[in-house]
Amino acid sequence: MCRWIAYSGSPVLIEDLLYKPANSLVVQSKHSRLGVETVNGDGFGVGWYGSHETPGIYHSIEPAWNDRNLRELSAQASAGRVFAHIRASTGSAVQQTNCHPFRHGRWLWMHNGAIANFPTVKRDLTLAVDPSLYPDIEGSTDSEVFFFLALTFGLAEDPPGAVARAVGLIEETGRRHGVELPIQMTVATTDGETTWAFRYSSARQSRSLFHSTDVSTLRSQYPDNPVLHDLSKDARLVVSEPLGDLRGAWQEIPESSCIIVRGARADLHDFAPV
Amino acid sequence: MCRWIAYSGSPVLIEDLLYKPANSLVVQSKHSRLGVETVNGDGFGVGWYGSHETPGIYHSIEPAWNDRNLRELSAQASAGRVFAHIRASTGSAVQQTNCHPFRHGRWLWMHNGAIANFPTVKRDLTLAVDPSLYPDIEGSTDSEVFFFLALTFGLAEDPPGAVARAVGLIEETGRRHGVELPIQMTVATTDGETTWAFRYSSARQSRSLFHSTDVSTLRSQYPDNPVLHDLSKDARLVVSEPLGDLRGAWQEIPESSCIIVRGARADLHDFAPV
Amino acid sequence: MCRWIAYSGSPVLIEDLLYKPANSLVVQSKHSRLGVETVNGDGFGVGWYGSHETPGIYHSIEPAWNDRNLRELSAQASAGRVFAHIRASTGSAVQQTNCHPFRHGRWLWMHNGAIANFPTVKRDLTLAVDPSLYPDIEGSTDSEVFFFLALTFGLAEDPPGAVARAVGLIEETGRRHGVELPIQMTVATTDGETTWAFRYSSARQSRSLFHSTDVSTLRSQYPDNPVLHDLSKDARLVVSEPLGDLRGAWQEIPESSCIIVRGARADLHDFAPV
Amino acid sequence: MCRWIAYSGSPVLIEDLLYKPANSLVVQSKHSRLGVETVNGDGFGVGWYGSHETPGIYHSIEPAWNDRNLRELSAQASAGRVFAHIRASTGSAVQQTNCHPFRHGRWLWMHNGAIANFPTVKRDLTLAVDPSLYPDIEGSTDSEVFFFLALTFGLAEDPPGAVARAVGLIEETGRRHGVELPIQMTVATTDGETTWAFRYSSARQSRSLFHSTDVSTLRSQYPDNPVLHDLSKDARLVVSEPLGDLRGAWQEIPESSCIIVRGARADLHDFAPV
Repeated sequence: MCRWIAYSGSPVLIEDLLYKPANSLVVQSKHSRLGVETVNGDGFGVGWYGSHETPGIYHSIEPAWNDRNLRELSAQASAGRVFAHIRASTGSAVQQTNCHPFRHGRWLWMHNGAIANFPTVKRDLTLAVDPSLYPDIEGSTDSEVFFFLALTFGLAEDPPGAVARAVGLIEETGRRHGVELPIQMTVATTDGETTWAFRYSSARQSRSLFHSTDVSTLRSQYPDNPVLHDLSKDARLVVSEPLGDLRGAWQEIPESSCIIVRGARADLHDFAPV
Repeated sequence: MCRWIAYSGSPVLIEDLLYKPANSLVVQSKHSRLGVETVNGDGFGVGWYGSHETPGIYHSIEPAWNDRNLRELSAQASAGRVFAHIRASTGSAVQQTNCHPFRHGRWLWMHNGAIANFPTVKRDLTLAVDPSLYPDIEGSTDSEVFFFLALTFGLAEDPPGAVARAVGLIEETGRRHGVELPIQMTVATTDGETTWAFRYSSARQSRSLFHSTDVSTLRSQYPDNPVLHDLSKDARLVVSEPLGDLRGAWQEIPESSCIIVRGARADLHDFAPV
Repeated sequence: MCRWIAYSGSPVLIEDLLYKPANSLVVQSKHSRLGVETVNGDGFGVGWYGSHETPGIYHSIEPAWNDRNLRELSAQASAGRVFAHIRASTGSAVQQTNCHPFRHGRWLWMHNGAIANFPTVKRDLTLAVDPSLYPDIEGSTDSEVFFFLALTFGLAEDPPGAVARAVGLIEETGRRHGVELPIQMTVATTDGETTWAFRYSSARQSRSLFHSTDVSTLRSQYPDNPVLHDLSKDARLVVSEPLGDLRGAWQEIPESSCIIVRGARADLHDFAPV
Repeated sequence: MCRWIAYSGSPVLIEDLLYKPANSLVVQSKHSRLGVETVNGDGFGVGWYGSHETPGIYHSIEPAWNDRNLRELSAQASAGRVFAHIRASTGSAVQQTNCHPFRHGRWLWMHNGAIANFPTVKRDLTLAVDPSLYPDIEGSTDSEVFFFLALTFGLAEDPPGAVARAVGLIEETGRRHGVELPIQMTVATTDGETTWAFRYSSARQSRSLFHSTDVSTLRSQYPDNPVLHDLSKDARLVVSEPLGDLRGAWQEIPESSCIIVRGARADLHDFAPV
């Protein structure tokens, strides 16, 4: 499986997010604490919204922990919206087009989990992608097809609704092919303004997902972390696992729910497939 | 576009094929003489039939001319059937799953050329692939979809017929989408025993393709080439461009034809899409 | 050999430098016009001074023309000082630690050319590097050893003097080993404020080197190039070969000379080894 | 640190060594049991003696567990002498020239451990390498310098003596620079006929090292392992950690000793630096 983090707030140097925390994503790439796989070394990706309309993306097939370009890039680039993802392949090839976050226009998408028996259902799911979007699929992962299903179902207009319909189709398609538990997922998506994150699985035993309490709480818990002192009050993180030991600074996102982060607000909603 | 060579005959050290000739495929990777692109540096691949049922494959995203592992591998491995291909991408990603030769079971396939406007026709063509074969598509190239269409249409039973039907479908599909000249191709495929090579294009102006005259003629033309002296009499090469200056040693394969190489025999047939 | 460009001026989007010009460095990576090698596909590098003291570096072993991360990075990052280099290896391995520009502290260094018979003189030259700097040598190229010799001889205090002494040592060492023409070079180095570029060779037949005339002249010659309209008046380029057809916009830097670019000023000096 | 295996015996398919055992080297690359690092994902290498004088080498910067070319190569190549190594970098770059086994002529060399404070002692140690060998150093690791010291001290004539002198120099040099415990090592080297393996560290607390008991014992312990049934009686393995659970099949090589494997014989000797 994988691990990811989604940041929104005042512009932050990417290395402050990826390298500085005690249990940073780069640390997790070698030794994840809560992941199904402890090693997430099958490539990684970063997406960030700089001063341009379209977010930048850096995808690499190296493990994050030994990639020098990631260290360089993240020491130079600041952004107010950052998605980062480390990958543990469940079978599909380790190649840049299979690295998250995936991008379409202004949208980014990343996924931890899997569509069960993907080879069996891949054709049916891919056929359900809008033919005008179909040529933009570049890789071979379940996660990217999932993204394109959400785009097909109106991600740009109604993200929770589009994801619910995509998950509904995945579950229906899986069951039609005899797959008992068709999906396992934590997903984050953003248009550069708002972040939507989902925690759901057919078995209702979803991978871990947390969001940060407000920055002032974090600051008091990590007084030695200079990064936190530079963050704006509305800075928020949604993460596969806490970036440090003080779990109190992090709230678990409940099973079968969606969190919508917009500025300082973080609203929880129930999530169910349609 | 790309360049390729297909060898059959007595076991030969792969480096004798890929590095030794004056205009070897590795030389062509940097300076092709007859190619549409002079540089074919977007990855490469080698497929070879060793002592096992299934051929081995080495795919790399580095240019062939600077890949040390290719040099090592080809200095160690001998084979009686070798396919090798250097790639100049026409847009799809440079990744191992897009490198030729593609493999399915005992079959290898490599292609120089393109399906025109592939993004436009990709969905229709991919849908025509047998659903049981569909999950085995790993990359994003036109060439691999072409291979899977040929497999769908019976490559294993009747290679020329299957390729003719695949090309027929590609042309029909292209024209339905307003593509005037849907395909440009030289293709080689083998089951490890026989090699079938095709030269065709909708415009009837196909990429170059040559086959070697018999080895004794080659030997007399390249007296200083020790490789040729070790080859069996039935050794044959089909190549995108001659491996040396003496073009007399090479016969051009005519437009719209198929050559079938089995042992010392090389039979030419007309080729037309069905 | 290689090709490089050195930019100084108002902050510019890196893609405007690397992709937009008709004969951009990325174009040159596949089809250099004036280079000894037409293909410079053995990796590349970019160094840029963003908002931090230390410049960022992106090094890749892929050819520049097909590297997606370069496209992404250069579409996001703006900088007022940019060094970029495409490599055609003269033998040493294609690896990130052999990609230019090399960095030490705030300094960047890039080189087109070669130290002749480098394996023969490498040990003596490396021994001449200051022992306190020695451990920072990471790669295996002549260019990096040359950089460390210049650092040893006081690059930070007197760049032209340090380079002259480094070249003097290289020539003396080469001749001691029977090398007639020990060096071929165009070199650029910068501390982020000033750029020094050198054109020299033992044979006095050095690789090409040009600098841009002032921006207003360039603008009138490339009226359709929007990039030029955004540049400050003091923007300057030093390049291995002109970025477009209008050579009049470019002045050749004479044999055996050094150009010092500081703000809008570009001063030419004679250069001779010490 | 790292993990390695050294095989000698009847020709064996490399995949039988690298993939088939329960705790194979590929498994160890993600989850080493006895290593200082559980993850050895910073590249790997295989060296094998095929039908040629010089062994072949495959070096990759990908983690072994996800490298498809390794799987292909090892499914095709058989050899009677195989060295394989997975790397966990202690700081030097992840690049092919830093991957073990290193090769010089017919000799292979691989190392688990480190020369302590290598940046401090690197220059002195490198200077001690025979000047005629010096230009052949390609990478930046301590392990390769160690190999070249052994070559300098007569590896080809007296391997145990040469390694003892190299270790003696490393310890003397380290201590002169204030390094208390200059070396930690398990090393294997071979000329393609005999394998010498060393276990030593300045602290006398060396990394684990085991050798297989004779094949008939192994067969009885792993009755379901078809690989073992194909091996000749003289097949021997020296490994960083046992390839399966039944430790009884493996004998620990004692601290400060050297094992010499030639045919079916495996002789233990004391090892001490000179």
